[in-house]
Amino acid sequence: MTLAEMTKSDLEQMLKELQAQYNGFKSKNLKLDMSRGKPAPEQLEYCKEILYCLNGNFKSENGIDVRNYGMPDGIPEAKRLFAQILEVDPANVIVGGNSSLSLMFDIIGNAYEKGVLPGMKPWSKVEQPKFLCPVPGYDRHFSVTKFFGFEMINIPMNDDGPDMDLVEELVSNDESIKGIWCVPKYSNPSGVTYSETVVKRLGSLKPAAKDFRIFCDNAYVVHHLNLENQDKLYNIYQACVEGGNEDMVYLFTSTSKITFPGSGVCAMAASPANVEYTRRLLSVKTIGYNKLNQLLHARFLKDIDGVLNVMVLHATSIRPKFAMVQQVLNRGLAGLGCANWSNPHGGYFVSFDTMEGCAKRVYNLCVEAGVTLTPAGATYPYGIDPSDCNIRISPTYPPINELEQAMELLAIVVKIVSIEKLLA
Amino acid sequence: MTLAEMTKSDLEQMLKELQAQYNGFKSKNLKLDMSRGKPAPEQLEYCKEILYCLNGNFKSENGIDVRNYGMPDGIPEAKRLFAQILEVDPANVIVGGNSSLSLMFDIIGNAYEKGVLPGMKPWSKVEQPKFLCPVPGYDRHFSVTKFFGFEMINIPMNDDGPDMDLVEELVSNDESIKGIWCVPKYSNPSGVTYSETVVKRLGSLKPAAKDFRIFCDNAYVVHHLNLENQDKLYNIYQACVEGGNEDMVYLFTSTSKITFPGSGVCAMAASPANVEYTRRLLSVKTIGYNKLNQLLHARFLKDIDGVLNVMVLHATSIRPKFAMVQQVLNRGLAGLGCANWSNPHGGYFVSFDTMEGCAKRVYNLCVEAGVTLTPAGATYPYGIDPSDCNIRISPTYPPINELEQAMELLAIVVKIVSIEKLLA
Repeated sequence: MTLAEMTKSDLEQMLKELQAQYNGFKSKNLKLDMSRGKPAPEQLEYCKEILYCLNGNFKSENGIDVRNYGMPDGIPEAKRLFAQILEVDPANVIVGGNSSLSLMFDIIGNAYEKGVLPGMKPWSKVEQPKFLCPVPGYDRHFSVTKFFGFEMINIPMNDDGPDMDLVEELVSNDESIKGIWCVPKYSNPSGVTYSETVVKRLGSLKPAAKDFRIFCDNAYVVHHLNLENQDKLYNIYQACVEGGNEDMVYLFTSTSKITFPGSGVCAMAASPANVEYTRRLLSVKTIGYNKLNQLLHARFLKDIDGVLNVMVLHATSIRPKFAMVQQVLNRGLAGLGCANWSNPHGGYFVSFDTMEGCAKRVYNLCVEAGVTLTPAGATYPYGIDPSDCNIRISPTYPPINELEQAMELLAIVVKIVSIEKLLA
Repeated sequence: MTLAEMTKSDLEQMLKELQAQYNGFKSKNLKLDMSRGKPAPEQLEYCKEILYCLNGNFKSENGIDVRNYGMPDGIPEAKRLFAQILEVDPANVIVGGNSSLSLMFDIIGNAYEKGVLPGMKPWSKVEQPKFLCPVPGYDRHFSVTKFFGFEMINIPMNDDGPDMDLVEELVSNDESIKGIWCVPKYSNPSGVTYSETVVKRLGSLKPAAKDFRIFCDNAYVVHHLNLENQDKLYNIYQACVEGGNEDMVYLFTSTSKITFPGSGVCAMAASPANVEYTRRLLSVKTIGYNKLNQLLHARFLKDIDGVLNVMVLHATSIRPKFAMVQQVLNRGLAGLGCANWSNPHGGYFVSFDTMEGCAKRVYNLCVEAGVTLTPAGATYPYGIDPSDCNIRISPTYPPINELEQAMELLAIVVKIVSIEKLLA
């Protein structure tokens, strides 16, 4: 029986019991921070030998000492590694610093100041440039486009990716729409992997704006939860080439959740024209990225097989936590009709939807009981979730017993807030 | 006797001999690149043990694992290290990535987009923002202000720093002047260290623009050539505080020429208000800089004494090269009245001035004979040296015997071009 089907007095009785349980939680004085998708301490150990892999050989395979200046677009072995990860040619790759977010920011900053390619109008000269934002999505993406003053337009996410009917309609008709954020694999937070159809429709867009760009953040490209149910992503660069839109996409990724968050290496891939222009503009702001770190990564990870070997270790740590989330939420909420949540095959998040208008209060009650989730609304541009229902669950960082408690609390709180809503 | 005092026939005879010497050089098929201030291969060895200094302890002194996300403004021990280098309080420091140039670019980008402090007008909204550029100066600084469309105004460098009469006059009267580039110690390329008077006048400026900023690139702050003749720099942040201009200055530095170029750590220092606002804006573009590299540096270098110990090693490599430059130039050019050059106590460059209108041809003749210098004009905004006389000599990278040959060639070429000019 769903909550909505229960009688008022049943709901009132249930609410009383739930409140008692909630108060019980409160008295435990929990202090759990589940606000960000941080790897757990044990995950930081898998690559700690990376510092010892050089054996005093600091030369890149082209014979250049990585400790000195030069090679602003990265060393060859790092380009090759990221080319394998992103399924492109090494010539299409620029290897960056420790932060793919910074690289995205800089690419947008360059387009804002100078246009996407030589001779194109800078986005700063467009009266009100707009950006499409599949929602729920990644708050830090939205912060970047907010920084540059883009009007952000929500695009609903379906089970196979963004609503492509809406995307196609908007970009074909509005020249001021300059880009779309995409996390095409194990999307943040929904866990959705874009279907081949969606990827091909993205690659075949006919944008009114010649300088429309797909910002494809492939942050979770190899971040499977297990060896069986792995999602496959159609090659987005290839889809754009096939669609006659070779210059329309930038791909990004990093080793932040392969080696170390914040001390990894990021990279981008794009068409030859984009790579050439990007290299030129990035050279204004840096003599080069940290090539010593690039060499450490290339030598330690070696190739895509080396990467996948490490990812198996990460999956071993993460998988039981994702399973625990499902188990506790199923136990506490299944069949009550007051919540839906994703059950992804990879990535770092579970996307959780309350009944309409409940997410903020759920978040607040959790905080009051000592569990900090990602703030409700954060998965939407401007922090505004129009339905106030989405909450991002980040199960990776806490120990599994704390995660279990946090999920139990969440289930209780969701029931409380839902019943309050039904009784109101 | 100077060249100008010689008879025409003496000059013609001399020119013939010089041309023979020049052709002799050409036949050697030299291939020397002295275009950038790169450390020599042996200098890259001084800190190579840095990768082994952690002994498996990845925790910052505040107990946080540097391999995970967090601490966007840097780890405490790195802040303390840079506070000692920049002679400020650790609370005034933000520790960045591997490139101080990127940090300068980002600070200007932030001011351009959002203004220097909350509520201030973005520089992008100023009709034609301007920037003061002491010349000769660092080409990459000028590229950054060119990128953002600033009009760059040349400020002559004197022996004690920029022409402060001119700086004071310009900034007091023109609200569109938003900043000045400064390399206050062992300046690039002149080697000048700003005098206490100049620093105090900088700190006491009364700019028409409330958002005027001194971009103080202290790239060579500990880069002495020897233990005796070390220049002292008055504390610029202190001078600004004393002048009632606490918010007017950003200091930058890096370990690029202490540990590794391009794989070091950079930092900035500024007032509490600037640090707070900068931290907030930088957080849009990155979750954090590479803290593992920060920890490696803090553990390896330890403190200012550790830094100075490494700098003694660098000086041992560099000092004979700077001496060689002086020796060859003195031997070939002293007393001829056709060239002046600096003899700095530190830094990475010797600034060389030909007679007016000769630098480009000197550069070209050197290239033809196999020696690439920094392009003539590069030390001026837009690559335009109005007198066409300045050439930057970067003695650090080549082996000393190659450096000797390059300087001998330079002396010959300068004499050839000067005599041609006198005979014309």
